[in-house]
Amino acid sequence: MKHALNTTRAADFAAWYQEVISAADMAEESGVRGCMVIRPWGYGIWERIQRLMDDRIKAAGVENCYFPLFIPLSYFAKEAEHVDGFAKEMAVVTHHRLIGDGKGGLVPDPEAKLEEPLIVRPTSETVIGAAMARWVQSWRDLPLMVNQWANVVRWEMRTRMFLRTSEFLWQEGHTAHADRDDAMKETLRALEMYREFSENVLAMPVIAGEKPEHERFPGAVATYSIEAMMQDGKALQAGTSHYLGTSFAEAAGIRYQTSEGGHDFAHTTSWGTSTRMIGGVIMTHGDDDGLRVPPAIAPWQVIIVPMLRDDEGDAAILDYCQSLVAELTTQSALGERVRVHLDKRPGKSAGKRWEWLKKGAPVVVEIGGRDVAAGKLAAIRRDALYREDGKLATEFPERPGFVSGIGVLLESIQANLHAEAKARLDANIVRDISDWDGIIAYFNGNAVPGWVEISWSRPTGAALDAVVEKVKALKLTMRNVPLDADPASGTCPLTGEAAVERILIGKAY
Amino acid sequence: MKHALNTTRAADFAAWYQEVISAADMAEESGVRGCMVIRPWGYGIWERIQRLMDDRIKAAGVENCYFPLFIPLSYFAKEAEHVDGFAKEMAVVTHHRLIGDGKGGLVPDPEAKLEEPLIVRPTSETVIGAAMARWVQSWRDLPLMVNQWANVVRWEMRTRMFLRTSEFLWQEGHTAHADRDDAMKETLRALEMYREFSENVLAMPVIAGEKPEHERFPGAVATYSIEAMMQDGKALQAGTSHYLGTSFAEAAGIRYQTSEGGHDFAHTTSWGTSTRMIGGVIMTHGDDDGLRVPPAIAPWQVIIVPMLRDDEGDAAILDYCQSLVAELTTQSALGERVRVHLDKRPGKSAGKRWEWLKKGAPVVVEIGGRDVAAGKLAAIRRDALYREDGKLATEFPERPGFVSGIGVLLESIQANLHAEAKARLDANIVRDISDWDGIIAYFNGNAVPGWVEISWSRPTGAALDAVVEKVKALKLTMRNVPLDADPASGTCPLTGEAAVERILIGKAY
Repeated sequence: MKHALNTTRAADFAAWYQEVISAADMAEESGVRGCMVIRPWGYGIWERIQRLMDDRIKAAGVENCYFPLFIPLSYFAKEAEHVDGFAKEMAVVTHHRLIGDGKGGLVPDPEAKLEEPLIVRPTSETVIGAAMARWVQSWRDLPLMVNQWANVVRWEMRTRMFLRTSEFLWQEGHTAHADRDDAMKETLRALEMYREFSENVLAMPVIAGEKPEHERFPGAVATYSIEAMMQDGKALQAGTSHYLGTSFAEAAGIRYQTSEGGHDFAHTTSWGTSTRMIGGVIMTHGDDDGLRVPPAIAPWQVIIVPMLRDDEGDAAILDYCQSLVAELTTQSALGERVRVHLDKRPGKSAGKRWEWLKKGAPVVVEIGGRDVAAGKLAAIRRDALYREDGKLATEFPERPGFVSGIGVLLESIQANLHAEAKARLDANIVRDISDWDGIIAYFNGNAVPGWVEISWSRPTGAALDAVVEKVKALKLTMRNVPLDADPASGTCPLTGEAAVERILIGKAY
Repeated sequence: MKHALNTTRAADFAAWYQEVISAADMAEESGVRGCMVIRPWGYGIWERIQRLMDDRIKAAGVENCYFPLFIPLSYFAKEAEHVDGFAKEMAVVTHHRLIGDGKGGLVPDPEAKLEEPLIVRPTSETVIGAAMARWVQSWRDLPLMVNQWANVVRWEMRTRMFLRTSEFLWQEGHTAHADRDDAMKETLRALEMYREFSENVLAMPVIAGEKPEHERFPGAVATYSIEAMMQDGKALQAGTSHYLGTSFAEAAGIRYQTSEGGHDFAHTTSWGTSTRMIGGVIMTHGDDDGLRVPPAIAPWQVIIVPMLRDDEGDAAILDYCQSLVAELTTQSALGERVRVHLDKRPGKSAGKRWEWLKKGAPVVVEIGGRDVAAGKLAAIRRDALYREDGKLATEFPERPGFVSGIGVLLESIQANLHAEAKARLDANIVRDISDWDGIIAYFNGNAVPGWVEISWSRPTGAALDAVVEKVKALKLTMRNVPLDADPASGTCPLTGEAAVERILIGKAY
């Protein structure tokens, strides 16, 4: 069967990914190393993600703030593990002025060298910690819960659009609590918020769990993640939540007077999700015809393409389309008004139809003169594009029924995309391998369908290092210890010690 | 009369401004040079501004995108006037890694020096121009209209929160058009959007007009601004819109095939508003008790403070408050649902009442046991805080009437704040001075109430330089040539030449 993209997922998943981004007009390389330009359709998806995530963050009682882009090096250096974890990928501002080089060009002005270099934030624990130290005096000030929507920079050597870029957009939540229990509760609340968001909004099923020690956020006591399975079987870490203990509070001086009159350091957390989620959506829902956007995050859920002929019939077609937009917009789906766009641009309707199908608009409607006469329309569901015979599965409903059913239709598309991805995730976690050879054999297959969940002994120190090397040699990583996994049993195939918990292993982005 | 702030506007306007920001918990110095932390109340106001401005931008057919934070120096240097205008205040990234200095500290790694320095964007014409050059091929691709919400950095030597910070948040619209007429139309559409937004949303009356030549955006052919009058009589430039001609298109290579088959450079525009608008709101509406937030941009429009006594009556008070929140939230004001917040924190109600009055919440409601019994409430309008005898002008309406009237009340507060500011603006522009001595005499007064609008000869070149110096010696600047000014008449008091248009002169932020 002929598809809209040149590359199929089966032929070359990485090339297919790039082609979807380009064919759906989502983003492009900017010419600035490792940075992308996010185009309207990609940014519109991000705006939907922002709005729906922000509603959840606010509902949890977290307040949005904004903190500086620049962090003085000295702030950063206060937490040793933290700075070690990021020092290799930091963009450093050293000058605040340019000056002529005497040859017609410009160079940083040596007279305007900063006394202390400024780091372009890779994450904001340190600068937010400094603010929290000012804000937290007493136990009454706790918990303190803030979030920011911001850009961050990590100088990645190998970049890939949405998945790993030098600059990316994200939200970072930062909270301070009186004790470990309260901070752990918040860490797990944020994790559950991400899990629920990923399932219900992105239609992207995930496994929530704790990262192993060597995969912790630099400086964290515990890191949790949600892991999604892409269509090539690789894992994508789509959100993380960290319990930071008191080390960041000690570095920044976040101390409070307890109700008994003593002084304690606060326990802090941080949690974040980013534009990387869009990469996850592409690799979860995309197909060989382009992107399929879950209706919850589609900038437009229904696209109406008039089939104009540059004759006197066009006015009636446009009238019909415009009133259809008005009617559909009164309907609701997924708790919001339906978002409808009438594509009035010049051009052939078939070209425009395919443009929107490649972008993954959930429903594309075409209206021609015969539809106007018959009170009908032609509708295509993006999640079920073809009939069995390979032709487009266009339907021709009566207009009133289509309008009154649009909410149900969009909700069923959302559910369908989730169900498809959930079936894939469930079918492709192998849980009955208990020896190292079995792991090797599984991942040596050419088309690796997914992950392996094993019982392991949770080694630390040198024993962990050895295990990490062993797994890395197969180009594998340990993803997380699922919160809802079965109890461990038997011997750890990685260490030969008695197993204590279950962990997921897979290839990863 | 005793007021909530220590400093009055009359005693020290600059100190009063800082105190409002602090008393209203809007923002604070971050410890990072020239950068502020925007706290929840300040950021909540910004989120309201963003949402309402974004609605207008989208309604105009402009699409949101996101472009890189970093701009290679070479991009910047392509437009000579542009780079000259910004070179003195640019944050320059020169390294992408830190390394140990051998003494336990960290320094930029000399091995990780960038081949070409990257500029932290002070504005994005150049990097967006490079993208437009890729996107624009034919006249069919025009007009191309994009906007981004982003942070930008200009290394200011003297900073003041919201008004002039090294990093600030803004939106920047960038458009490309086939010809001058279409680009000028867009430049003026954006200006009108800003004027309408300022009047209707910020309740901040402004004068829209063209900046004189020497105040143009670096590289622009024409710059327009909206100018607001602060309570100290100074002017605040609250938004700008630029017609850039073809020079940025020539520098970036934005060329298109015309419908006749030739090739032309596009005509571009850019326009922006920023967190500076919040400074304008403070200095337009603040009083000696703190901020007064126009209801359209108040994160919460109605605050409900229960007067709890830590006894068995508290449950009934909280029930009453909660159902009041639910009822008020069903009402609408200014085209949206009313935003109501119940302040359940522990603490005395008088303390909380004043906290919210200093923050400028439009309506503060207090509920005690007697209100519950009587089916009433105590309500304070922030825009009319005191009775003539100096006591708080609290009203005690019946609950049903208060609920059904909340939309009208909030709209009248919005209108009242605008009317107050409009009366001040109208009363404080002097239009009948026609000689230089008159200008000197006006601005030599100790309390300068406003601006002078004169007829001038629109000098250029050296003649303009001389005029600028003359005006600057009085610490004055030329603000703009109002679009709706009367025709010029007589002789220009600055040059002695025949006048050709009217221009505003004043002290400025």
